[in-house]
Amino acid sequence: MTTQTLIDQIRKKESFLCIGLDTDLDKIPKALLKEEDPIFSFNKAIIDATHHLCVAYKPNIAFYEAYGIKGWIALEKTISYLNEKYPEIFTIADAKRGDIGNTSTRYAKAFFEDLNFDSVTIAPYMGKDSVEPFLAFEDKHTILLALTSNEGAFDFQTKLIDGEELYKHVLKTASLYKGSENLMYVVGATKAEYLTEIRKIVPHNFLLVPGVGAQGGSLTEVCKYGMTPNIGLLINSSRGIIYASNGEDFAKAAQHKAADLQQQMKVELEKL
Amino acid sequence: MTTQTLIDQIRKKESFLCIGLDTDLDKIPKALLKEEDPIFSFNKAIIDATHHLCVAYKPNIAFYEAYGIKGWIALEKTISYLNEKYPEIFTIADAKRGDIGNTSTRYAKAFFEDLNFDSVTIAPYMGKDSVEPFLAFEDKHTILLALTSNEGAFDFQTKLIDGEELYKHVLKTASLYKGSENLMYVVGATKAEYLTEIRKIVPHNFLLVPGVGAQGGSLTEVCKYGMTPNIGLLINSSRGIIYASNGEDFAKAAQHKAADLQQQMKVELEKL
Repeated sequence: MTTQTLIDQIRKKESFLCIGLDTDLDKIPKALLKEEDPIFSFNKAIIDATHHLCVAYKPNIAFYEAYGIKGWIALEKTISYLNEKYPEIFTIADAKRGDIGNTSTRYAKAFFEDLNFDSVTIAPYMGKDSVEPFLAFEDKHTILLALTSNEGAFDFQTKLIDGEELYKHVLKTASLYKGSENLMYVVGATKAEYLTEIRKIVPHNFLLVPGVGAQGGSLTEVCKYGMTPNIGLLINSSRGIIYASNGEDFAKAAQHKAADLQQQMKVELEKL
Repeated sequence: MTTQTLIDQIRKKESFLCIGLDTDLDKIPKALLKEEDPIFSFNKAIIDATHHLCVAYKPNIAFYEAYGIKGWIALEKTISYLNEKYPEIFTIADAKRGDIGNTSTRYAKAFFEDLNFDSVTIAPYMGKDSVEPFLAFEDKHTILLALTSNEGAFDFQTKLIDGEELYKHVLKTASLYKGSENLMYVVGATKAEYLTEIRKIVPHNFLLVPGVGAQGGSLTEVCKYGMTPNIGLLINSSRGIIYASNGEDFAKAAQHKAADLQQQMKVELEKL
């Protein structure tokens, strides 16, 4: 998917919501466990109930990998379902991969070709030749970890290099990589005040913002400091939406939570 | 596996060789492509021919993931074969994973419980709460990326924070994590001169050293600066061994290459 198509979808749906499919057999409604593929059944119900309220879905690959082959089959079915039934949806493999050159190409093929995701999250620690193989794919997007929303972010990401935090150094350095027009960045919403400075470095790139809701970030604050004329934001919510209820009404409850966020996003978009 | 068992195995086999199973259908002998599971057939032949010359195998997970479900099945068969037939072998999932708390626990379960690897490689960018979930597993080992052997390592890993390179900061910080006795570190052999300084920070931990051979590092140099009284080194070779020949003699050719390295390692161990 091109960036322009994503922007058009955001405008059409009046939403820049991304729903995280962190599907956990211990948390989904018990009734689903009788189904042949409970993970896919859960995802399908959530997707069918919320697709008109969001522009992106983000399966966190760890949740699927933890179930072995069964998990990978559920992931394949989920991404195929999205690509066939809702091709207007932007898909994110939240995999946080990263390895050297020829190995990164393998991961890129796994997510961009074999599974046909629109984008994948990548860790920056190994630098240029671990990121550029992903950027070489046309109309695919690489979402680089910059500033994450967890406590451990302060271990390294905010340390100063030549008077500037490591995550800013990541933003500046990655902006020079070949194919950097295909870059987006992960920026945790618990640090909305950092967004002004981030926008000075990457004024146009999309930011994937986790941590609104469950992790404590404010949507209004994030939009105030992070939104661009082309929106430039995807706001993710996972548990707050998909586990809104663990009863038979789980899909309807997820829809209500997604609709709440979509309504708030509509208000923010009208400020543009 | 405990660290002591690994050390005992190194002394018994006079080898601290790790063989990287970066199995690529485009590089394995054509004759194997007729088999039901060419990836597993190749791995099995390599393992049977070399297990007495090495102490560890390291499948690079990207190579399996790139083949989708088929790749994951081959990986499961490979690790099961190793655990059943050669339980004395130390197994490394070269996955370079890393995510926040509850998600890291998912990855840890995938590799330590579901697949039953002895260790997994992890990227440090997200800090403490992305690493500690792995360290909580008894007799399992977490191999943290410190200084990698690729060109991109200079993008961030060698940048100075308070006058000290980021990778040293990673070593020092991770040494304070809960369960740090289960930590090993990836240190690229193309920078053997850095090992003296690394040993000042982590005098005892095992270092996994890729890049000897194909990537240009010298075994003697690495041992001179990196070896400890308990050895403290696992030296990896992947393509140099497993693709020594692409003819019918591929397993025998791999055995010869592994035996060459084992003989060099024996000489280094006698210097202790």
